[in-house]
Amino acid sequence: MPGRIVIVGANAAGVDAASAARKTDRAAQITLFERESRGAYSRCGLPFVLGGHIPAFENLVVYPPAFYKMMKLDLRLETTVTGIDPKAKTVEAQDKEGRRETVEYDSLILATGSNPLVPPIKGADKEGVYTLKTIEDGKRIDEAIQRSRSKSAVVVGGSFLGLESAVALVERGMKTTVVELLPYLLPKMLDQDMAKEVQEGLERKGMRVIVGHGPDEIIGAGRATGVSVAGEEIPADFVVMGTGVRPNVDLAKQAGLEIGPSRAIKTNARMETSAKGVYAAGDCAEVLHMITHEPIAPLLGTTGVRQGKVAGVNAAGGYAVYPGTLVSAVTRMLDFEVGATGLTEFWAARYGIETAVGRITSKTRADYYPGAEPIKVKIIVEKETRRVVGAQIVGGEEVTQRINALSLAIQKQMTVHELAKADTCYAPPVNETWEPITLAAEMAIRQL
Amino acid sequence: MPGRIVIVGANAAGVDAASAARKTDRAAQITLFERESRGAYSRCGLPFVLGGHIPAFENLVVYPPAFYKMMKLDLRLETTVTGIDPKAKTVEAQDKEGRRETVEYDSLILATGSNPLVPPIKGADKEGVYTLKTIEDGKRIDEAIQRSRSKSAVVVGGSFLGLESAVALVERGMKTTVVELLPYLLPKMLDQDMAKEVQEGLERKGMRVIVGHGPDEIIGAGRATGVSVAGEEIPADFVVMGTGVRPNVDLAKQAGLEIGPSRAIKTNARMETSAKGVYAAGDCAEVLHMITHEPIAPLLGTTGVRQGKVAGVNAAGGYAVYPGTLVSAVTRMLDFEVGATGLTEFWAARYGIETAVGRITSKTRADYYPGAEPIKVKIIVEKETRRVVGAQIVGGEEVTQRINALSLAIQKQMTVHELAKADTCYAPPVNETWEPITLAAEMAIRQL
Repeated sequence: MPGRIVIVGANAAGVDAASAARKTDRAAQITLFERESRGAYSRCGLPFVLGGHIPAFENLVVYPPAFYKMMKLDLRLETTVTGIDPKAKTVEAQDKEGRRETVEYDSLILATGSNPLVPPIKGADKEGVYTLKTIEDGKRIDEAIQRSRSKSAVVVGGSFLGLESAVALVERGMKTTVVELLPYLLPKMLDQDMAKEVQEGLERKGMRVIVGHGPDEIIGAGRATGVSVAGEEIPADFVVMGTGVRPNVDLAKQAGLEIGPSRAIKTNARMETSAKGVYAAGDCAEVLHMITHEPIAPLLGTTGVRQGKVAGVNAAGGYAVYPGTLVSAVTRMLDFEVGATGLTEFWAARYGIETAVGRITSKTRADYYPGAEPIKVKIIVEKETRRVVGAQIVGGEEVTQRINALSLAIQKQMTVHELAKADTCYAPPVNETWEPITLAAEMAIRQL
Repeated sequence: MPGRIVIVGANAAGVDAASAARKTDRAAQITLFERESRGAYSRCGLPFVLGGHIPAFENLVVYPPAFYKMMKLDLRLETTVTGIDPKAKTVEAQDKEGRRETVEYDSLILATGSNPLVPPIKGADKEGVYTLKTIEDGKRIDEAIQRSRSKSAVVVGGSFLGLESAVALVERGMKTTVVELLPYLLPKMLDQDMAKEVQEGLERKGMRVIVGHGPDEIIGAGRATGVSVAGEEIPADFVVMGTGVRPNVDLAKQAGLEIGPSRAIKTNARMETSAKGVYAAGDCAEVLHMITHEPIAPLLGTTGVRQGKVAGVNAAGGYAVYPGTLVSAVTRMLDFEVGATGLTEFWAARYGIETAVGRITSKTRADYYPGAEPIKVKIIVEKETRRVVGAQIVGGEEVTQRINALSLAIQKQMTVHELAKADTCYAPPVNETWEPITLAAEMAIRQL
């Protein structure tokens, strides 16, 4: 009898798990339950639709229905899994008409994602306070922009998604203020020095950024009309909460699966949870950090699809291992890109890792080549072993693949000495003769 | 007494050697002899000035005269070193007035570069046949473009510089034909499949490319008026020879220094030649390939400055080692970039390395994000060890740093399995969720 694989959640991790399972076992019965009304779409693309770069939200849908047919995936939309029983190996599902169903599985994959985390701010339940997690959320914010009279908005939270949302609002002509409780933007991925670069880049384009103060209250009678921050009332026709997300582990908890210190579902290297035959992948799953070996929920699309693939292969009887994460991330904001991989100086210190740091400001093309953009690179090195453990880059172009290069270097335990002498390439329109990441490595060596 | 360091050649390798020597020994006497009338300028930039991207040839000059003063470098322009005596530790120099001088040194660095290699083609000595090595060469070709009546030209040689020159001619509105004797373009850096991508990319923009035939003759009475290829007469107002360069080792030979199988000056890991205290760096120097450990003259600006730095540190009494080369190279041509690192499939086979190959065509941004460009990645893997040994990429953007990432991976002996699972980053405007280099790695795994 062919294996029965059930997947809860048909977004990035879920659908990549389904594809990998299908490639591993052509005969498996694969069922995906999805509470939303669409198959997988790119949540990462939502702010870029809002900003006007992509014509329509529906463009974000990754696969046409024909894909699911071709891959013989039984996609059950608008159907919520209400419970799982790892002992009986069954899930309970309920469709939009309220019909309940019990489905048996041989392998189960939880790809339940994450939910927006809205802190208990007074007035956060008012109308006109939005989160940005689904296409419907995106459409609501789009309408709010169109309806906005004063053309002003506040984004609460200087997270990646918070800033991407704020950038979109600026691009749509909104007077936009970001309010971040912590002393600097993107505190999970950047140190304060590099976060300052980001802040200045955003401010140059007219965004207002307030750090070190959370909102005291979202004001307005029934509907948000502003945010009160450090005694100031900032008017806003609406508020976007960019205060992060939390792994959605309700089902897992209810089924008694082990939840890790990151508040995500604990998994082993094969993405298997504490229950045999039950896998987790994507935002709901906890994995290990490649450097610290500590549990972490990276909450990224890239890590989600990778984990999904590993879970899918294993669920279908194959063998695959997830090697851990460096939480490599990048985005483009207005006229610059920001990316990071591995540990920040701050987080390295938190883990007791003594570090040296190298910083350089260079250009993305030969100095004499028109269009050269500034680029700032920071490299973090473990003092004892001299291996690179982290990197942060803010620059006008070509940041993404530099982060990837450094991610590979970190993964292979490259020392800062090896990096400084690496055989990099150049041509006047596309790089400086001395690659900036090698120069940053040299600066770190001077500190050692 | 402070050390006396003499450097022959004040271009990329020579001036970077001088800077490194100065940083190593603040008191050293450092003299640079340069036969041209300028200090270091970017030869790599010449085709891009010709193509109109950079306003003037003089923009390519890297440092103002003040730099040499500040660094206390005695730069002797239009002065040719006519002989060296490694036993007496002296060099003979002659300035443009014919004044001869004998200079003593404690350390000598040969940064004599390379000369254009013009094969014995009938008529190659005609007027209107140019090479592109110096600013003066560039100016001559620029004038030839302006004078050209039929607006047609032929470039002989599908090397990097040959193609960059041909691209510049196309950008200047010339009807341009490239003639390459070997069966495909860029045979040192690409395999035939990837070279075909390059050829098609150039042809799409109107360049004519003839491969597998060398020119029989450059025709014209005194002055070139065309090139005869495989029985066809291709009219041309002028001809550019892009047939490669050869290390300039005249002085080294004359001094009895050992010349290696690559026809460049043999060096050890510290860039020291067979004569104690005599170093070589840049196009004239032979180093080892990181994978094959065979001697090679990489003939690149990036390798030149790295070697110069190592030679400079050692010449000034410091300690530095050159780790070898992967001949990582990249350029931009019209609307695409082409880059490579490590071994091609062809060259791996020549060295007896059995390989598997992975190829993928993907996009440079999320499929739904406007402006996504196609990108083709080829990864070459050693079968026995499964480590990556080479990569070639042709794509619309973001090729350079992918080559750098793969260069780091190769240097750290990353296996194709590790590469396939690497923690890469993504955002819709700057990458696909699945990084193309990891997808190419997966394709290679299927072959294994």
